[in-house]
Amino acid sequence: MDPDAVAKAFVEHYYRTFDGNRPGLGGLYQDASMLTFEGDKIQGAAAIVAKLTSLPFQQCVHAVSTVDCQPSGPAGGMLVFVSGSLQISGESHALKFSQMFHLMPTPQGSFYVLNDIFRLNYA
Amino acid sequence: MDPDAVAKAFVEHYYRTFDGNRPGLGGLYQDASMLTFEGDKIQGAAAIVAKLTSLPFQQCVHAVSTVDCQPSGPAGGMLVFVSGSLQISGESHALKFSQMFHLMPTPQGSFYVLNDIFRLNYA
Repeated sequence: MDPDAVAKAFVEHYYRTFDGNRPGLGGLYQDASMLTFEGDKIQGAAAIVAKLTSLPFQQCVHAVSTVDCQPSGPAGGMLVFVSGSLQISGESHALKFSQMFHLMPTPQGSFYVLNDIFRLNYA
Repeated sequence: MDPDAVAKAFVEHYYRTFDGNRPGLGGLYQDASMLTFEGDKIQGAAAIVAKLTSLPFQQCVHAVSTVDCQPSGPAGGMLVFVSGSLQISGESHALKFSQMFHLMPTPQGSFYVLNDIFRLNYA
């Protein structure tokens, strides 16, 4: 599978999980993982899930506009950069966002998220 | 120097160089460096500088809105995520952009850009 296809599959899986079963995102992070969400820094899978499940909206739908990816060095990691929009239930306008993920390989042949930075694109 | 200060100093240096002496950006990349600019993938310092100096605008000013950074693993790298706006000379409206840099340490105690992904934020 080429890196672009892996990145696209990861992104689809991530946002489908976010929108449908947010606590399930915990399986994508590890203890060393870091999330910076609108400037808030959180470390560790448990704390990251606690943050993501306590955001002030329950239902949302992400729509992805662009996915860019690059290999990130000799350790087999991958950088994934996403732009898209976030429609929060009950809100009239979708919010544009940009997000980057640093994916690292697991011994099982999958990936986990080592770094995650999320920002809304304010107009 | 703490990582946030390093990231901020890098970002200021990068855009000051971009806006004032674009060919000077070459010193920040190496042969292994990758740039994805609006989906175009370019590798190597020389090719990256050729791309950045041949963009269809000569004069521009970047204004940075947010800088987020995280350490990127045991190799001492750093991920830097920037949002901001780009005012192109002669255009009435600034363009919003998001950009990420993966910085790696050099033996001289500085950093070079291993990964660089740039996207305009279309409204």
